[in-house]
Amino acid sequence: MLSDKFHEVLENEGIVTIVTWGNEEPHIVNEWNSYLVVTEDERILIPAGIMHTTEKNIKVNNKIKMALGSKNVKGYDNYQGTGFVIEGTARFISSGAEFNMMKKKFEFLSRVLEITVTSAKQML
Amino acid sequence: MLSDKFHEVLENEGIVTIVTWGNEEPHIVNEWNSYLVVTEDERILIPAGIMHTTEKNIKVNNKIKMALGSKNVKGYDNYQGTGFVIEGTARFISSGAEFNMMKKKFEFLSRVLEITVTSAKQML
Repeated sequence: MLSDKFHEVLENEGIVTIVTWGNEEPHIVNEWNSYLVVTEDERILIPAGIMHTTEKNIKVNNKIKMALGSKNVKGYDNYQGTGFVIEGTARFISSGAEFNMMKKKFEFLSRVLEITVTSAKQML
Repeated sequence: MLSDKFHEVLENEGIVTIVTWGNEEPHIVNEWNSYLVVTEDERILIPAGIMHTTEKNIKVNNKIKMALGSKNVKGYDNYQGTGFVIEGTARFISSGAEFNMMKKKFEFLSRVLEITVTSAKQML
């Protein structure tokens, strides 16, 4: 589901926007492209330092949307730049092998935000 | 309200994520940093090519949230990278002097998304 083009975007630094929504208006948090780790079964793992509102939203509604892109990666029709909108379900993990692997990479994290992707749409 | 740091981010290319929400779940569209034009009174003008769902949402609820950033711009405490979450109200404009100015810059636009900023928070 996650194309080579998606992986190419991750290799170019940029800002990732993550959107969650519970009973209130949508909440935004940001990460860097280089902080996203894709597992072999194509879940996306993201280091979470604070993200309290995101976690609160996820408890009410585990749907998540995320956007990222890079002007350095070619999109459709040779357009200079591409971007993806990812949809999925999310949970926070705070122990286990994947948590430990992520903690080694990103010492600042307190939990890992795990996204199970349901849709990964290349927009450009 | 829009700091020098915000303007510095606009000078570095990156992906902008715009979030609107009407009666359904939040909707995401993206733009490039370089496509944002700040007016003298600090409204943000954005070329809109399609953005049908965004326009539909704005008719129900004119609130908007937007995130952008750059790893090339220093944040707080000398951190390498910064980002902003902007909140405001939005409308689409399809005629007038500002529309014409934007149309000259961005031939592909059919309308201009105008954001009146209520909050511009530097996150990093």
